[in-house]
Amino acid sequence: MNNPSSYNKLTPDLIARLAEIVGPKNILVDEGKENYARDESPLATTAMPEAVVKPQDARQIAAVLKLADRNLIPVTPRGAGTGLTAGSLPVLGGITLSLERLNKILEIDLANFSATAEAGVTLNDLCQAIEEKGLYFPLYPGEKSAFIGGNAATNAGGMRAVKYGVTRNLVLGLEVVLPSGDIIRTGGKYFKCSTAYDLTQLIVGSEGTLAVITEVTVKLISPPPNREILFIPFNSLSEAIGCVPAILREGILPVGIEFMEEGILRMVEQFTGKEIPMLGYCAYLMLILESESYDDFCKLAERISGICLKLGAADIFVPNSESAKRNLLEAREKFQPTFKHNGMLETIDAVVPRSRIADFVQKVKEIGQKYGIRIMASGHAGDGNVHLHPLGTEANVPALKDLLTDIYKAAIEMGGTLSGEHGLGFDKKKYLPLAASPEKIELMKRIKRAFDPHNILNPGKVFPD
Amino acid sequence: MNNPSSYNKLTPDLIARLAEIVGPKNILVDEGKENYARDESPLATTAMPEAVVKPQDARQIAAVLKLADRNLIPVTPRGAGTGLTAGSLPVLGGITLSLERLNKILEIDLANFSATAEAGVTLNDLCQAIEEKGLYFPLYPGEKSAFIGGNAATNAGGMRAVKYGVTRNLVLGLEVVLPSGDIIRTGGKYFKCSTAYDLTQLIVGSEGTLAVITEVTVKLISPPPNREILFIPFNSLSEAIGCVPAILREGILPVGIEFMEEGILRMVEQFTGKEIPMLGYCAYLMLILESESYDDFCKLAERISGICLKLGAADIFVPNSESAKRNLLEAREKFQPTFKHNGMLETIDAVVPRSRIADFVQKVKEIGQKYGIRIMASGHAGDGNVHLHPLGTEANVPALKDLLTDIYKAAIEMGGTLSGEHGLGFDKKKYLPLAASPEKIELMKRIKRAFDPHNILNPGKVFPD
Repeated sequence: MNNPSSYNKLTPDLIARLAEIVGPKNILVDEGKENYARDESPLATTAMPEAVVKPQDARQIAAVLKLADRNLIPVTPRGAGTGLTAGSLPVLGGITLSLERLNKILEIDLANFSATAEAGVTLNDLCQAIEEKGLYFPLYPGEKSAFIGGNAATNAGGMRAVKYGVTRNLVLGLEVVLPSGDIIRTGGKYFKCSTAYDLTQLIVGSEGTLAVITEVTVKLISPPPNREILFIPFNSLSEAIGCVPAILREGILPVGIEFMEEGILRMVEQFTGKEIPMLGYCAYLMLILESESYDDFCKLAERISGICLKLGAADIFVPNSESAKRNLLEAREKFQPTFKHNGMLETIDAVVPRSRIADFVQKVKEIGQKYGIRIMASGHAGDGNVHLHPLGTEANVPALKDLLTDIYKAAIEMGGTLSGEHGLGFDKKKYLPLAASPEKIELMKRIKRAFDPHNILNPGKVFPD
Repeated sequence: MNNPSSYNKLTPDLIARLAEIVGPKNILVDEGKENYARDESPLATTAMPEAVVKPQDARQIAAVLKLADRNLIPVTPRGAGTGLTAGSLPVLGGITLSLERLNKILEIDLANFSATAEAGVTLNDLCQAIEEKGLYFPLYPGEKSAFIGGNAATNAGGMRAVKYGVTRNLVLGLEVVLPSGDIIRTGGKYFKCSTAYDLTQLIVGSEGTLAVITEVTVKLISPPPNREILFIPFNSLSEAIGCVPAILREGILPVGIEFMEEGILRMVEQFTGKEIPMLGYCAYLMLILESESYDDFCKLAERISGICLKLGAADIFVPNSESAKRNLLEAREKFQPTFKHNGMLETIDAVVPRSRIADFVQKVKEIGQKYGIRIMASGHAGDGNVHLHPLGTEANVPALKDLLTDIYKAAIEMGGTLSGEHGLGFDKKKYLPLAASPEKIELMKRIKRAFDPHNILNPGKVFPD
């Protein structure tokens, strides 16, 4: 939208004024900045901020944004830096606005089943504090060191979305700061609202391009009494995927339904040194089930086994101890580091309607063959979010853009889209035109301008230009 | 935003061009227009369109909008006209765009648990078609003759929101037409998306002010096997409300938790001539419960009874036949016509955090006394959406605005907002500044302009000026 040359550089005077706002020890202009120059992007994208600014609250953020807006300095909000798309890197220079000091849990409201936390609280700390009070926050994107503000900014998803939805379904309200310096509250501790536009839902998933999220109010549930796992091998991925609607049509709502190919499990076994049961089949479903009691789980397991065995399951594995359960879940959590260890070139989190997962993975394998790149597939069978990991070496990097373009085109042709939970950030923004018409992108840019007329907030992200 | 004088009137030439677009028999400029001049607004607001235009599809709508946009003619989209806030009335003149001919159910996708319908399909027809295919759409705002497009436009809620959420939680995607004539698709048959801004969620609840919804894709579930009711009398409303978090903390998730005062039930009994059980107490909870089997319901009922009796319930009533169940649900559905019959002056659907419902109702009674107006309270105890019905005569009308202002101020002070499910439309727009800061309203207006730069789409709604 803006090009780099239209921004100004931070002058010593502006740096002094920033230091005045946040306190001199909360601004980095030299040493320490390098810790803010990258995230977990598999492309290893880096960008050095001119200054890292660590405000303490929304008022300080408002002052920083006002100053930056008047002086045309880019401001890039940053959470814990666990993003996968370079979304929190200052690719056009300027200020990196770290939310790390906004780390207070403000309220856990037992009567209204809600919690309110500053944006820089880690998901881990938030969940723990909530559980200590006897309630439960079901969001589980895998990376619990992420900040809750970052979860909201990217609309993080994860392994419990079939039953509990993604971040957007769990956020009730926000406090945000606009580039103008206005502090705005959206939503509240209620579940129904038809009072003008839903700014909460617009800002969730906007990747820090519309406003800086400073506070998040989330919906809690009562803790699930019993959680068990079923691990089901199949001789083909399409048989595995075919079981998903059949299970759901029986009125069974698992917390998560993960699918994975055997190749991945072998890699994880090798990487972690921990044995994984039932190897030797083509594909697997891992069902995470909640129930009132172990007895109830057994009944559920029986019904699910009946369905799956009828539709081609080769066997049914029920881990029979807490450690066996833990092992399986940990194997799933280790996919990302395992791929990294094995030369992961990129992480793709495309989405297709869930009935198309098997077709899509088949198509992706063909695309991989075309480019001579091995692609591992796993993901969330319950919600159609497919994770693809092209593996290779430096030599494969030049082909990546075409490979991803082909993969995304295939997903979109099947009625899907680019990203289910990681966002576009910087690394994936070039693919947006595959998923959105020029008119739709123009509309989104007009919305962006409604929030941020001078395009100072996380510029160079989401939109390809 | 615009004032009436900045719009043009429909000329004979423009009417001829509209007739060309939709066909001469699908435009009303004289007789029949009066059927489109009001909705169910208790204030009996009316506004006569200059022309009623009945397009057949999104392409015709695009042509109508383009023409109107170029000629500065207001266009007011209209569903079934069941709204309660005059939101579908052409208060600044121009075209009423009736969606009634977009009445096709396009797909019920059993594998992906989704249905896609044109905007003018009634909720009733949609639910029936889905149930015939063995799946289920849980939205239940009470008025099943509403169009699904209208449900989306107002973010309709209703009695099953505790478990299933409101319309916004059930909409997966939209086809919409912008004032520019661009036809845009948002979302799709998937449950996870982090691919730029969520236009679906922004347009849902925007009351036809941003775009004309032409197609809605919704999320389905498998049909609940068993549905039962518990009807629980209390000697005070605060005891009744106090049970709600206690039930939820036990991990019990009713489909709906309704509260009502005895006065309402007496009125309904008189109005319908059908006996209501358990009269003689101060307040009631009606719990709608789904379970796998009747046995499971009995276990649930026992747990809930234990909680409620401990917290002050006077008794527990379990309707012991289908007709007894039906009677109770029908009594609840008859609140609106009963109030109408008894001199309802307005319908208020304010929201407070659910722990504050009893305080809020108490405060509302005091406000009613101040103005000498009797106010009946009922609503959705599970989600904090409180329905208030001031009853009276013509003589009470002048006090209404101040009464509502006081009520809304009380709701907002308690952390709530103006409308949970009806929207603001025309009748309630003047109260928006109570709930939203000037900066927030300005931001929303800029979003409105991003969609509709000439303010032709449902002007005179939502925003007070």
